[in-house]
Amino acid sequence: MKISELSRRSGVSIPTIKYYLRDGLLPPGRATAANQADYGEEHLRRLRLVRTLVGVRRLPVGAVKEILGAVTEQDGDLHQIFGIVTDARPVTQQQKQARERERQEAGEETGGVTDARELVAAMGWEVHSGTAAIRSLGEVLDALSDMDSGIDWRSLLPYARLADRISELDVQQMEGVSGVLELAERAVLVSVLLEPALLAMRRLAQEDKSARLFGGGSEEGEEE
Amino acid sequence: MKISELSRRSGVSIPTIKYYLRDGLLPPGRATAANQADYGEEHLRRLRLVRTLVGVRRLPVGAVKEILGAVTEQDGDLHQIFGIVTDARPVTQQQKQARERERQEAGEETGGVTDARELVAAMGWEVHSGTAAIRSLGEVLDALSDMDSGIDWRSLLPYARLADRISELDVQQMEGVSGVLELAERAVLVSVLLEPALLAMRRLAQEDKSARLFGGGSEEGEEE
Repeated sequence: MKISELSRRSGVSIPTIKYYLRDGLLPPGRATAANQADYGEEHLRRLRLVRTLVGVRRLPVGAVKEILGAVTEQDGDLHQIFGIVTDARPVTQQQKQARERERQEAGEETGGVTDARELVAAMGWEVHSGTAAIRSLGEVLDALSDMDSGIDWRSLLPYARLADRISELDVQQMEGVSGVLELAERAVLVSVLLEPALLAMRRLAQEDKSARLFGGGSEEGEEE
Repeated sequence: MKISELSRRSGVSIPTIKYYLRDGLLPPGRATAANQADYGEEHLRRLRLVRTLVGVRRLPVGAVKEILGAVTEQDGDLHQIFGIVTDARPVTQQQKQARERERQEAGEETGGVTDARELVAAMGWEVHSGTAAIRSLGEVLDALSDMDSGIDWRSLLPYARLADRISELDVQQMEGVSGVLELAERAVLVSVLLEPALLAMRRLAQEDKSARLFGGGSEEGEEE
């Protein structure tokens, strides 16, 4: 296909495609004339993944390049690819070393991180010990404890069970998608782009529950 | 209690408490000597709510002041208070006008926002029509459609049902908490501070599901 069709089918503008070509994010097309090239389905798939990594994960072009390299190196190992595109797994040797250093510099883990590992063990989740989400969960548990909230990792278990069911829906979204690049794109869409949607739906449901439980109702009508 | 005890029990430093007193976020204590004052439990409750709004919702002091004013005006209407502290409901007249203007300037709603309303209706959620979460959900639905993801509001219904169950857990966290200021603080902790924890648990569960479904396993051992 011509670059104009590639642009139309990917939703990426021609100038941006040219920029990606110059930057090596896309391999060159097959030259058909002095100033024309032909692009294939593989270009389209790769371009869609680039678009999603830039637009949804908001990654700079350099990081996208590293991820693309890492994805193709994995030789179709979908678990590795899922981890790389969703940031559960470091892409480059430098990143691996940086995370390792971070962990060592932190010295003893905070109580929150230890508690996060307890929760992971209680749920029977098998995860990479350096996965970024353990630190995020640990930070929240530390904050909850600093604030004497009375909410600890055990109180989060019912939430963890619902998170587990959400992740089952997530992997179902991968069904029927074939090809490594498509799966990588889908994984980013589902795991990253759905995050604000999940939080928004929780807020909407909270508002509904709060109205039912606490609501007087009389003022509602006027404000609508 | 003396300011030192107020500091110890709230986890807020004495200089910060003095700053809040000067700024009117806390009412003055009862003067007991030239340079000493006595603070009560009400000061402690108010200070804890201020600390949570500043530390967890990352609000500037001016906004916290408006929220405190709005919360006390609600005369114990917990549904209104829940909406105000979690940002489902505009606090000031200016904010109300700004949101209204935003809505009008946007003219026709985007397809995503219309779809978000469909989802809300399908779930039977009763929410304020201008609630911020509808716009957030609409933005994600627009992006999913722009990207030809094939994921629309109907595909999100199973997620919405789990979000509904999460919100049931959320309101359960309010049980046993009495007093308007305590409830307001709890609402912020549960609805805002738990957000990154929920997303982190989903990521951990995803990693587990991805390992089970796609994982080869051989490489895992070496990397741990």
